[in-house]
This record gives sequence, structure tokens and C-alpha cells, in this order.
Amino acid sequence: MAADPAGAGLVDAGACARRLGLLRRACADADVGAFLVRDTSDIAWLTAFDRVFDEEAAHALYVDGDRAVLHTDSRYATACRAAAAGTPLSVDDARETHAAFARRLHGDAIADDLGIDDGITLAEYRRLEDAFSPSAPFRETSGVVVGLRAVKDAAEAARLRAAQAITDAAFSHIVGFMAPGMTEREVQLELEGFMERHGAWGLAFPSIVATGANGASPHAIPGAAVLEAGQCVVLDFGARAWGYCSDMTRTVFLGEPAGEMRAAWEAIRRANEEVEALLRPGVTGRAAHEHAEQVLADAGFGGAMGHGLGHGVGIDIHEEPVLSPRNDRSLVAGNVVTVEPGIYLPGRFGMRLEDFGMVTEGGFDVFTRSTHEMVVI
Amino acid sequence: MAADPAGAGLVDAGACARRLGLLRRACADADVGAFLVRDTSDIAWLTAFDRVFDEEAAHALYVDGDRAVLHTDSRYATACRAAAAGTPLSVDDARETHAAFARRLHGDAIADDLGIDDGITLAEYRRLEDAFSPSAPFRETSGVVVGLRAVKDAAEAARLRAAQAITDAAFSHIVGFMAPGMTEREVQLELEGFMERHGAWGLAFPSIVATGANGASPHAIPGAAVLEAGQCVVLDFGARAWGYCSDMTRTVFLGEPAGEMRAAWEAIRRANEEVEALLRPGVTGRAAHEHAEQVLADAGFGGAMGHGLGHGVGIDIHEEPVLSPRNDRSLVAGNVVTVEPGIYLPGRFGMRLEDFGMVTEGGFDVFTRSTHEMVVI
Repeated sequence: MAADPAGAGLVDAGACARRLGLLRRACADADVGAFLVRDTSDIAWLTAFDRVFDEEAAHALYVDGDRAVLHTDSRYATACRAAAAGTPLSVDDARETHAAFARRLHGDAIADDLGIDDGITLAEYRRLEDAFSPSAPFRETSGVVVGLRAVKDAAEAARLRAAQAITDAAFSHIVGFMAPGMTEREVQLELEGFMERHGAWGLAFPSIVATGANGASPHAIPGAAVLEAGQCVVLDFGARAWGYCSDMTRTVFLGEPAGEMRAAWEAIRRANEEVEALLRPGVTGRAAHEHAEQVLADAGFGGAMGHGLGHGVGIDIHEEPVLSPRNDRSLVAGNVVTVEPGIYLPGRFGMRLEDFGMVTEGGFDVFTRSTHEMVVI
Repeated sequence: MAADPAGAGLVDAGACARRLGLLRRACADADVGAFLVRDTSDIAWLTAFDRVFDEEAAHALYVDGDRAVLHTDSRYATACRAAAAGTPLSVDDARETHAAFARRLHGDAIADDLGIDDGITLAEYRRLEDAFSPSAPFRETSGVVVGLRAVKDAAEAARLRAAQAITDAAFSHIVGFMAPGMTEREVQLELEGFMERHGAWGLAFPSIVATGANGASPHAIPGAAVLEAGQCVVLDFGARAWGYCSDMTRTVFLGEPAGEMRAAWEAIRRANEEVEALLRPGVTGRAAHEHAEQVLADAGFGGAMGHGLGHGVGIDIHEEPVLSPRNDRSLVAGNVVTVEPGIYLPGRFGMRLEDFGMVTEGGFDVFTRSTHEMVVI
């Protein structure tokens, strides 16, 4: 592993070759001779390019036993060629569709199966059918690269921690900034501006600042609502740094809460901490989720969460694995997940307490450093 | 049309009913009994909901002759129900896949064709096949709703202008802020912060600030590069306001340019202005693009653009129609497009001049108000 300027293990010169090796092994296991990758985050992970890709789905990566060829267009070709130096990748900016590119590269290997991900659009699939017709060597797979991405290496863990450090600092800042009378939007802009000015490359996702009854919508959009004494405010935010996301939620109280609001806070804190204490390799996503649901139900808030307990985080804000009833698979070391129990009482209030961290051989290493103590303003 | 608080024609109470009518007419023309919409921007346009949807593809809209039912989940249900009041929409948050929802609603109409868009994922298509098996009433269509969205109504035009007004103001601000010695990233943060603090709901896309040779990558990502005298700086940015995007590019000179840099500037300005003068209903996207290419070639910069001349703008930053060789269709009144000729000389510099506006019966109404005069700092 090469040293990065900060000496923090963020840069991993061998990442591309190693990740291509993982994909090739997955292809061999699936008896697929080649794979066509279309998802930009999958391509960003496999290439380990920094600061080259944006949100456009403008690229394709063809990988077989010998070759790894990135198909891009003139807008990105210069940056891709510079980033590919020293990697096993070649860059091809021929003016043709990704389907025609794949057909050209697959060429004489037409008898071999070509793995494709079922996350491609139906239109793209039809283009592939046309390009390869009358042959149709496609093997539809689901989340092969996403599955590889679910296990983070040391350099990825360092980047995720770096992103979270910015996010923790932003929380400290915003607690000193917030006061009754401000709008949600004012708080959001201060929070996001802080992250942008303190090392973030961008935001992991549009921040949520939701006060009072707005907090009962887990995906509330910050607006003109004014923070008022007696309310609680949900802050859900994250930075993107070194190409990786962070994700945290804290709920801040405008005045000491009592009654149901206090009980709800104690319930989500207990759910969060009990789950973080039990996470380790072998625990299923479902078991983690159900443990949190049980804690909330025992406190009288059964059915008040409504969403999954957590999700993977990496290059994308939502990755594998998920902590939810639909994941019966066991966690493994290197998985990075959020733990975010919430209680939402429509028309009244909502709250959530979210950390994220990495499953290790010995348990769960929480990246988030901000306090779990009740924060009262 | 209802008045919005600002009295600017931004709110259009009848939009949902009218847009559903347009979709139903398109379905009837295609002899499709019902349509399943999955793209969130398509759904945002059809429902005309404000501030309800975010970037998650968490929704489906089933529309037939009688019904328009929005399938969402518990995270969005409260906001969707509130927004649906007074519209023909009903909201359904049953805990089932969108495919199962579609099968349930299509129910006794199983003999009728169900229109689907080929922008859905292959995985979603397979889920639909499973849900409807052994029937398969799918009619694959391409961009039906996107096509309807390509013609903007008056309230949409007002929103696009409102977004551009913020963007023009940000350009005035940043010209006063920029100076040699700053990094691209510093300029980007100031530019974006200004838009966010002056009415934007968010950014239309991550801004580009690219100086010197970085400007030769049309999709450069702003970084630590420092603005230096003698360079030109490409600024490509836009606000999102009232749910609609704006998009502009200006190239700013750090000192009076000479020689090839001046000639390139004059060429892109001429290409921009000649195309804006010729746009009107009946002109094809290809003709507009080729006119610009010809102007650049006549000035000695043939082949130096490498991208399409323009694209539609609306709820999404990239919409229909495009001004490019792949669009042989005629523009119609209500189309909103960018005009953005560029010249990129790898290793040296790049520049682009981009406005956007609306095709009208009489020509092209440019929304962008910032100057075309050379800006020298």
C-alpha cells in the first residue's frame, strides 16, 4: 500500500489490480468468461480512480481473463488515461455504444458467457441483444460487484473514517449554531457549508433537518419551518470525501424533553447501543433489525420505525448489506453499515439516532465519534 | 392557474390533472390501456408535487383510464397524501413490491396492455414478468413521459426562469470574488454557497470550475488547482429551485487573452449567438448542432468540441430534446434547451459559453441574462 500525502493509508496503489482479481474469481466461480460493468460506482470501485467519474452513467468496463478495458467518451478520456497509468486498465474512447463496444471486445469469445448485471436498464439490455444478435451469450447476475464492494479493505475504511471525521466536526459546529427561531433551511445550509469548507469533496446526500412534526417524515425536505422551543430536530447528514460517504443522524432537543418524547429518545438510544454491541460476523441483517424492533416494542413504540435498521455505506450512500427483515445472510468482517433506529409519531415528532461503522472479527468498530448523550439546546 | 405567494405564476393547481390527461392521450394513441411509471422525475412531473420526492427511486405510479394511484412507502406516505389533496391521485403505501402493486391494480384488466418504460432496470422487468406470469401484457416504450416533459407549460417556464435568475446573480457575485491565487474548489464553494443562500433549493448538478488545462476536460472536477494569470476558467453551474434546474456556463479570463485563446473565444461566442438566432419550431436538433460545428470549423477549430451542442433542461438537468447529430426531429414551441458550444485543446485550455432558454412560436427566448461580452479579471 502506497503512502498518501497525509500518511493516513488513504491511497492504495494496488487496489485496481486486486479488485479486478476479485471480479475475475467471481466470474470463474460463476463460469462466466467475461463481465460487462455499467454502474458508475461499480466502475469507480474496480478502477480505484480518484476524482474522475461524476454522476453520469457514461462508462462501461469489460473484464475478461486477460483484459480490463474501460469504454468512455471524449469528455472523460483524458482524465481516464491519466488515472489508468500504472494500472492493468486500458482506456477506449471509440465513438460507439457501450453495447457495440462489448460486442467488439467479446468478438471471438462469442461462445463464452458474458456476465451482465440486472441493474442495467431494459433499453440497454435490448441494445445488447441487438448488438450480439443472433447470439445471446448473456448471463444475468444481480449485484456481483455490489457484493464485492460490501467488504471494505483497509484503505476504504480509512476513507470512510476520514469522511466521518468531517461529519462529526460538523455536528459539533451545528450544535453551537442552532437556536429556536431559525429555519430548517438555515440550519441545513450552515451544516452543509461547514462540511464543504472542512475537507468534504461534496455531500453524501441532501441533508435532512426536520423539526417538530416534520421529523415524523423520515425523508423530510428542509424548508421554511422554524425551530421552536419544546421540539426535537432530526439532523441526518454526511460528507463525501476521498470518494466515500459518511452518514449520521442525531436528534437535538430544544429544551429538556419530558414524557413520551423522553421515553422515545431513551428507546432509540437503547436500540442503537444494544445492536452496536451485538454486531459481529455471523449475525444476520434480519437479527439485528429484529433486535432493534424488539427494544422499541418493549418501550411501547412497536411499529413506530417503519424503515430498515441500517444499510451499507461506501462509494454510494446505500450499499450492501442491509440490516432489515429482507436480509437473512450473515454479516462478515469488512461490512460497513449504519445502525439507525427511529421512532416516528405522525403529526407530533420523530427522532433517529444513527452511527455507522465496520464489522470486525471481534465485533463492530463504530466510525461515528459524536456523543449518544442527549443534546439539549 | 392558482396564484403562488410570489404572484409569479409558479404554482399551477391544475397541472397534475392536465399532465395525467396528456399521458392518457399518449396511452390511447399507443393503444395501451394502462401505464406504469417508475422514474421519480417522471412521477414528480405527473403529480406536480412540490418538495416531496428526493433522489430515491422509491415510487411507482399506475395510470389507467379511470385511476392514477401512487405507490410509495411509509417514509413518504404522509407527505404524498398531503400533496395529493385536491388532485385526482390516490396514494397506496401497501408493503409490497412495485411489481406486485402493478399486478394488483392491473387485475381484471389483464387482457389490456400495460405500458412500461425501457428506462426501468432489467431486474424490475424480471420482477414484473414474475408478478404477471403466465401473462405478460407489457408494451415496452421509450421515453413516453420524457417526451411529454419536453414541452414546458407556462408555470414550468416561470420556475426555470426563477432558477436561472439565481444562477445569473451567482455569476455576478463570483466575478467580483475570483482572483488569481484561489483554488478551483474555493471558487466552487463560494459559487454554490451563493446560490444556496439566495433562493436555490439545491444545486442542479455539481458545479464545474476548471482553470487552465483542466478546462479542456468538459467534465473536470474542481480541485486544488490554483487560478493563474493568463489562464481562462470555465464555470458551469446551475441552481435547482421550485423543482426545476438552471444551467449556464461562462468562461472568465485572468488577464486579456490573445492569439488562439482570443480566437477560440470569438468562435464559441459566434457559434452560440448564431444558433440562438436560428432556433425556432421546425429546426432540428441536428441542424442546430451542425451549424455550431460549422462556425467552429470556419474559425479553425473543427472537431474541437467533441460533445453535443445542447440538451433539454427541466426537472432533470439532462432532458429532451438534445441538440446533437442524433436528433433529427424538429424542435417545437415549449422545448427548453441549452446552447453550449465549446472548444477543448488538451493540455492547454478549454472554454464554453452556455445559455438556456425556450423555443417559442417566434424564435428562442433566452432565460440566461448574463453577458456574452468577454469577462476579464
